[in-house]
Amino acid sequence: MIYVIGIGPGSLEMMTAQAKQVITEVDTIVGYKTYIGLIKPLISQQVIIENGMRGETARCQEALKRSRAGEKVAVISSGDSGVYGMAGLIYELSDGKDEIEVIPGVTASIACAATLGAPLMHDFCHISLSDLLTPYDTIMKRIKHAAAGDFVICLYNPKSKGRPHHIENAIAIIREEQGSDLWVGLVKNAGRDHQSHHIFKIDAIDYSLIDMTSLVIIGNQSTQIIHEKMVTPRGYQL
Amino acid sequence: MIYVIGIGPGSLEMMTAQAKQVITEVDTIVGYKTYIGLIKPLISQQVIIENGMRGETARCQEALKRSRAGEKVAVISSGDSGVYGMAGLIYELSDGKDEIEVIPGVTASIACAATLGAPLMHDFCHISLSDLLTPYDTIMKRIKHAAAGDFVICLYNPKSKGRPHHIENAIAIIREEQGSDLWVGLVKNAGRDHQSHHIFKIDAIDYSLIDMTSLVIIGNQSTQIIHEKMVTPRGYQL
Repeated sequence: MIYVIGIGPGSLEMMTAQAKQVITEVDTIVGYKTYIGLIKPLISQQVIIENGMRGETARCQEALKRSRAGEKVAVISSGDSGVYGMAGLIYELSDGKDEIEVIPGVTASIACAATLGAPLMHDFCHISLSDLLTPYDTIMKRIKHAAAGDFVICLYNPKSKGRPHHIENAIAIIREEQGSDLWVGLVKNAGRDHQSHHIFKIDAIDYSLIDMTSLVIIGNQSTQIIHEKMVTPRGYQL
Repeated sequence: MIYVIGIGPGSLEMMTAQAKQVITEVDTIVGYKTYIGLIKPLISQQVIIENGMRGETARCQEALKRSRAGEKVAVISSGDSGVYGMAGLIYELSDGKDEIEVIPGVTASIACAATLGAPLMHDFCHISLSDLLTPYDTIMKRIKHAAAGDFVICLYNPKSKGRPHHIENAIAIIREEQGSDLWVGLVKNAGRDHQSHHIFKIDAIDYSLIDMTSLVIIGNQSTQIIHEKMVTPRGYQL
C-alpha cells in the first residue's frame, strides 16, 4: 500500500490529522531529504529512504517496489502531493495493480496567502516558473493568458540559480497586460523557520529578495492593501 | 482576537492540527450552519453563532463585535477561508485595530484532485461560476483565457437553481478552445458523507449529476486516464 502524502508547507501544525496519523503508522517513509527533516518528530520505527533533488523517479520506483513486497509506504511531498508533487509520478509508474491513496495537504499558495492577508479570495491560478519539465514558451504563454484574464497569479519556483531572470520576464508580461497599479506579495519559507513576507507595487519589486524558498503572488485589478494586508475583495455588500 | 479558519472539505481528518486546536479553545464560533454541523465533535463550551447563506456580512460583523469585547472568536469557512471564504470580508470590515489571524485549510480542489487521481500536477486555475458577486461576462472571459492557456481548470460553484446553464456555457467555451479530446472529473460531497466521483470525456458529461455540492475539474491537453485515475503528468523522465 502506498500513501502519497502532502505534509503541508512545513510546520507540523499545518499538517492534516490524517497525514500525521498515516506517517506515524507506515513501515517506510520515502522523500526528499529536506522534507524528511520537516517531519522528524513523527519518525520512530519507520525505515527512511531519502535522496536529493532530481531523484524523484528513483524514489517513487523504490516506494512501489516496497509496497509490492507488502510494506505500507508513505511517499511525502511538501504542500500537497498533487500540486507539483509526487502523486502524478506514482500513478505514471504504477502497473495498475498497486494500491495507492493520495492524502491531501495545504499547498504553499494557501499558506502564503494566509500570511499576506486574503489575496486569493477571487479566481486565481498557479504557474510554476521552472522550465526543467515545461518549455519556457509554454510558461510565458500561460503568464500572458492569466494576466489577460485578470487572475490573481501564484508563481511557484520563481527563481533558482539556473534561471535567475524568469521571474523578471514573467512580471514584465503581467505589467504590460495589467498596468502598474498592481500589488505583489512575496513569502519566503512559508510555515517554516525564518518565515518572512514583503508586499510591493509591481514596479518596486526587490528581485534580490526572491529565491528558491519563495512564492510570489501577483494581485489582480481588484487587489488592495487593507490595513497592511493584501486582499482581493469578493464583492460582498458591506 | 479573531481566527479565520479553513476547516477543510468536511471530515475532521482533513482539518489541520492548528485549526482543530484553535476551534477547541475559542470562546465563540461563528459560521454558516452547514459548516457548524461539520465540526460538531469539536464543540463543547463554545458559544455558537450560525446563520444561513447570504448572511456573510452580518456574521463577520458579529464576530468583530465580540472580538472587540475581548472574546476569542473563530470564524469558520469550509475548505480554506482565503479561497471564496470569509478571510477577505473580515479584513474589509475591520477598522485596522482588530487582531486577525488566518489559519489555512485544504481547499476543495485539492481534496477533489486526490479523489480523482492527480489532475493538478501542472499549472491550473480556480474559477467560480457564481455570478452573485462577479459579472457573468468576467467569468466567461476568464474561462476563455484559462482554456487558451491550456490550464487545468477547477470550477467552483458549478451549478445552482438560479444558474443551471453556466456550467454548460463554460464547457462549450473550453471545448471550442481545446477540442474534444479532454477529460473532465466531477466530485460530489468531497470529504463528506456520500462522496462520489465521475470521469467523462468532455462531450459525454452527464450534466444532470452536477449540483451545488459538486466541483468540476477540466483537464488540459496533457491530462490522461491512467489505471482509471485522472492524471496530468508533469514530465519527469520515466
